[in-house]
Amino acid sequence: MNLFLDSPLNALKEYVACASVSADSNFHEGLVAAQNFAQAGLRQLGFEVDLIETPGNPIILGTRGDPSWPRLVIYGHYDVQPPDPLDLWTSEPFHAVERNGRLYGRGAADNKGPQIVHMSALARVFKANPNYPVHITYLIEGEEEIGSPSFRGFLEKNKERLKGDMLLVSDTGSPGPDQLVVTTGLRGLCALEVNVFGPKQDLHSGVHGGALYNPLQALMRICSSLHDKDGKVTVPGFYDNVRPPEKWERDELSKLPITEESYAEFLGVQKFFPPPGYSALEGVRFCPTLELNGVGGGYQGQGSKTVIPAEAFAKITCRLVPDQKADDIAKKVENALIEASPPEIKIEVKSKGGGDPYVLIPPGKPGSSGEESDFMIKAFSQAETCIRNNFGTKPIFLREGGSIPIIQDLKEVAGLDSLMIGLFTNEDNLHAPDESFHLGIMNKAIDSFEEFFRGLV
Amino acid sequence: MNLFLDSPLNALKEYVACASVSADSNFHEGLVAAQNFAQAGLRQLGFEVDLIETPGNPIILGTRGDPSWPRLVIYGHYDVQPPDPLDLWTSEPFHAVERNGRLYGRGAADNKGPQIVHMSALARVFKANPNYPVHITYLIEGEEEIGSPSFRGFLEKNKERLKGDMLLVSDTGSPGPDQLVVTTGLRGLCALEVNVFGPKQDLHSGVHGGALYNPLQALMRICSSLHDKDGKVTVPGFYDNVRPPEKWERDELSKLPITEESYAEFLGVQKFFPPPGYSALEGVRFCPTLELNGVGGGYQGQGSKTVIPAEAFAKITCRLVPDQKADDIAKKVENALIEASPPEIKIEVKSKGGGDPYVLIPPGKPGSSGEESDFMIKAFSQAETCIRNNFGTKPIFLREGGSIPIIQDLKEVAGLDSLMIGLFTNEDNLHAPDESFHLGIMNKAIDSFEEFFRGLV
Repeated sequence: MNLFLDSPLNALKEYVACASVSADSNFHEGLVAAQNFAQAGLRQLGFEVDLIETPGNPIILGTRGDPSWPRLVIYGHYDVQPPDPLDLWTSEPFHAVERNGRLYGRGAADNKGPQIVHMSALARVFKANPNYPVHITYLIEGEEEIGSPSFRGFLEKNKERLKGDMLLVSDTGSPGPDQLVVTTGLRGLCALEVNVFGPKQDLHSGVHGGALYNPLQALMRICSSLHDKDGKVTVPGFYDNVRPPEKWERDELSKLPITEESYAEFLGVQKFFPPPGYSALEGVRFCPTLELNGVGGGYQGQGSKTVIPAEAFAKITCRLVPDQKADDIAKKVENALIEASPPEIKIEVKSKGGGDPYVLIPPGKPGSSGEESDFMIKAFSQAETCIRNNFGTKPIFLREGGSIPIIQDLKEVAGLDSLMIGLFTNEDNLHAPDESFHLGIMNKAIDSFEEFFRGLV
Repeated sequence: MNLFLDSPLNALKEYVACASVSADSNFHEGLVAAQNFAQAGLRQLGFEVDLIETPGNPIILGTRGDPSWPRLVIYGHYDVQPPDPLDLWTSEPFHAVERNGRLYGRGAADNKGPQIVHMSALARVFKANPNYPVHITYLIEGEEEIGSPSFRGFLEKNKERLKGDMLLVSDTGSPGPDQLVVTTGLRGLCALEVNVFGPKQDLHSGVHGGALYNPLQALMRICSSLHDKDGKVTVPGFYDNVRPPEKWERDELSKLPITEESYAEFLGVQKFFPPPGYSALEGVRFCPTLELNGVGGGYQGQGSKTVIPAEAFAKITCRLVPDQKADDIAKKVENALIEASPPEIKIEVKSKGGGDPYVLIPPGKPGSSGEESDFMIKAFSQAETCIRNNFGTKPIFLREGGSIPIIQDLKEVAGLDSLMIGLFTNEDNLHAPDESFHLGIMNKAIDSFEEFFRGLV
C-alpha cells in the first residue's frame, strides 16, 4: 500500500505524531521520528535520500530522476514550533484529530500539511508516469522554526547539488480556502539589541534623582528618535534603496478579499498607522519597518519602587524590502542609535543577524527581468491555471510581510528563484494553540499540484 | 537593670532580632515582637503606652509628663525592609553582630538604631531628673517601609493627642561619622503608572508590521516628550510653584565633605546631568524630578522574538520641592501624558498617590517665618551646640532628596514642625544587604541627645 495515494490525511496524522520541536532539546526523539518519516516517504516515492549532518539538526536531501532533465528543487521543514501553552489546546497537539473540516495538531499547517500535499501529488504523478521527466531535489530542513542557523553553511557546502531551474515552496499564507496566493516576495530582516548603562547599580530615586541621566529616559529619547511623528523611519539612508511596488502589485492587492475594516477588527485596533502614501494592507507588504519588539528596565512588578535603574534595553527588528540589504540597514540603525545617545550614558548596540529581502516579479508581469527560464515561465503559468481549475478563482500574485531568509540565501548561493504557493491561512493558528490545516484546501491543493506537476513536462 | 542605661548596644541587638518586615505577611511574628520590644522599652522609661489598631500594623503611642509642659513628639518606625537577597549578607540579617565598629543587621540603621539612641539618651536624662519637665509623645509606626498607608487615617483620628511644639525625627542621613546633618527639608512624591494598548494580542511583526502603531513606539514617544534635551521637565506648569533655594542653603551645601568627583565615583557615572543652573549635589536637594522607575513591554527574554506587543507600561515618580503639591503635579503629568498620546493608541494613566514636600527654614536663617515657638528656637540652637560639642563639627543644615510623606502630614494635621537629625550614612546600606549602624555615631549621638534633651529645659 502507498500511504500518499491511499490516505494523505493518515500520512499527515502520522507526521504530526512526530513531536519535532526544534526549540527544545527534550524533543530530540520527535525530531528523529520526523526525519525518519520524511525519509521513508521520499524513498517510497522513489527518491535517493541522504541525511546531511549539520552543527544542529540534519537536513534531508532527496534526489530523483536524470540530471539532464529540467531540475526542480522542493523545500520544506520537518521541525515545528513548541506546543505551549498546552492548556489552551482543545485536543493533544501531537495527536492530530479532525474537527469541522480541519485537522488539528502542531505542525499540521506549518509545514507538515503542505509537505504531504506535495508528496501526495507527486505519488499520483509518478504512478501514472514512472519516468516523469523532471529531476527533483527534495530539501527538508529541521531548524526553520529557530531561524535556520545551520542552513547557510549547508548551502555553501552543497550548492552544486542544489542547482536547478526553480525552487517550489509552500510555507506562506493565503487569505482563505477560496483564494490562494502566489507569494512573489518576502521581507528581509535585521535584528539589533541596544543596551544603555547609567550608574553602577540601581539607585534610590529620592536620594540621587536630579543628579544623573536616568538610563530609561535615555533609552526613550534614543528610540523615539528613530521615527518621525508620521511613523517614517528617520535613520539616515534607511529608504535609499527601497524599490517601490509595481502598479500591478497594488492592483493585485486590491483583489484580496479583505477590507481595511475587517483587518482592523481582526487585529483589534481602532486606527491604522501605515507609512505616508500607503494603505495598511500595502504597508505590511511593500514598506520596510523598524519595530521595537521588547523594551525593559527598572522595576517590573506591581506597585511602585522608586529606583533609577542601572541599565535598560530595547530589542529592535527591521523588516526590509527590495533592494535593501540587511547588513547595510543594521549598520545604519546602529549608527543612528549611537548618534542619538546622550554623552552621559554608555550605549552598546549588538547586531543579531537577519536576512535580505526576496522578490520575484513573475514572468510576463511589468518589472520582470525577462530572463526567466522556459521552465519557470511554464511553472508560473501552470500554477495560475491549475489553481483556477481546482479552486475556482485565479491566484493573487502578492508579496508577503514575513521573512524566510533561506529563500534569498538559495537565490544567492544556488541561483534558485522561487514559486511560493500559500496553503495556510490566518485561521490555521500557526505558532499558536489549536494549530490546524484546512482539509478542503488540502484536497484541492493535492489535485492542483498533480495537475501542476503533470503540466511541467 | 535598665537595658538602655547598661548597654544600648544589647538593646539594639534585641530590637534587630525582631524580624519586623512589613512588606511580607510571613513576618507577622517579628512585627509583634518588635511592637512588644518598643512598648516594653517605653514603659521602662516611664511612658504610658497604647497600641492603636489601624487597618494595617498598629501604631505605638506613648506619653509621659504633664500636658502643661512644653510638648515634644518623637517619631520612629518599628518595621524594616525585607532582608533579600539573603545570600549577599555576610552574617544573618536578624542576628546582629559587631564587626569593625559597626553593628550589622536588618533595621540596625533604619530605624531601630536611631530609636535606641533617643531612648538611651532619655533614660539618662530621666535617671538624673525623674521629673524632667517636657511632655513627650512617642509615635512608633509599623508601616513606614511600605509607604505608611494607615498613617494619615491614624493622624486624623488622633490629632488632638499629637499636638505639640515640635517633632523630633532621626530617620535621615548624614555624610559620615564626623559630620552630621540637620535635615531641613524633604522632597515630596507623586507616583503614576501609564499603560498603552495597541492590538488585542501580540502580533507577528512580519505579517502585520507596517500597518499599525506599535505600543512600545508610542510609549517611547509619549515618555520622551516629558523632558527636553537639557533634562528639564516639559510638563506644562511643572515648575510654576517651585521655590528656589535660599542663598544660605547653597552655602551650607558647599560645606558638605563630598566633591562632585567623589560622588560620581560613588555612583559609577562618567558625567552628571543635573537641571540647568544647578550642580549635581544641588539637583538632588533643590530640584523636582520626573523619573522613569520601570518600563516594560514585548519580549523580555534572550535573543529576539519578532512581536508587536499588545501593550506596554511605564512607572513614573516625581520628586517634588516646596511649594509644589503632589495632587497638582500628578494631574499635570497625567494631562501631559494623555496630550502626547497618538490617537492610534489607547492610553490609561493611574495616579498611585504620594505626599507633599516639606521644608523648614531653621529659626534665624534667612527665609524663616520668624513665627517659631521659643521651644523650637531653643531646640535648633541646642541641636547645633550639642552636635558640635560631641562630634567636633557644627552640623550642616541641609535639605535631603528623599521623601518621608508623614512629616508633611504631621505638619498639616497636627501643626508639628520637625527637627530631623540624620544618624545614618550611605555606607550603612539601607534597604540593601549588610545593613549596619556605625557604633561611633551611635555612642556620640547618645551623648549628644542627652545634652540636647537636658538643654531643652
